[in-house]
Amino acid sequence: MTKQRNIILKPIGVIHNDVEDSRDASFDWSPVISNIELDERYTLYTHGIDQHSHLLILFWMDRPEKKQLQPLVYPRGDKSLGKAGLFATRSPHRPNPVGLKLAELIEVHGNVLIVKGLDALNNTPVIDIKPYLPGYDSPI
Amino acid sequence: MTKQRNIILKPIGVIHNDVEDSRDASFDWSPVISNIELDERYTLYTHGIDQHSHLLILFWMDRPEKKQLQPLVYPRGDKSLGKAGLFATRSPHRPNPVGLKLAELIEVHGNVLIVKGLDALNNTPVIDIKPYLPGYDSPI
Repeated sequence: MTKQRNIILKPIGVIHNDVEDSRDASFDWSPVISNIELDERYTLYTHGIDQHSHLLILFWMDRPEKKQLQPLVYPRGDKSLGKAGLFATRSPHRPNPVGLKLAELIEVHGNVLIVKGLDALNNTPVIDIKPYLPGYDSPI
Repeated sequence: MTKQRNIILKPIGVIHNDVEDSRDASFDWSPVISNIELDERYTLYTHGIDQHSHLLILFWMDRPEKKQLQPLVYPRGDKSLGKAGLFATRSPHRPNPVGLKLAELIEVHGNVLIVKGLDALNNTPVIDIKPYLPGYDSPI
């Protein structure tokens, strides 16, 4: 493999909600409402985003407990299934802890997006916002 | 908004295929076969991933033409629809050009994943591999 250089990202905003602490795998995030506050320079970047019912939110999972990466983990912490390779799971303890979650877009107020179902803790940095496109983001 | 620090990612591998140059929006990526060569240290991380028919591939779009970010762009380059805010499109010219594509998993050979439908150029760095989970990654 060719030598790969580091990649530098700049957060574009921050997530606000009332979930302050890490939750176990049984926690139901589906009703959680989050305000995604983008940097004001990105206000125009959300123009027309309300034509999409769902968004894909990329965020930086900066608060998993600091622990060494494990190649094999229990999916969703469920020990009945046996361990799987980390890339076969959605564990937050990843080489690059970029979170990805589909969320329902509720309202847009300029640089603030109100979404439902995002599974990120309060104050999580946001990396990117993409519209969910059914024909592109789901298996044919 | 609170001041956000830079985030540093390390590529976990590289994409190999026969698409060398940027393609226009009409290019059909769906039949393109790519080999995702992960760093050998991640071989065990793919254990059991063949239980998933589709993967979400996160990659670094390191070869869009260098041009200034535009807050408003034509979705898929289609001028008939009018401009939309960048975050309402999948344009690769983003503040953080992280690509996200659902791809069909064809074969696994240790640290090499063979996938179909990934829309990344040859030699694109890979950031993360996640299993596609139908109940989690699609609207209810």
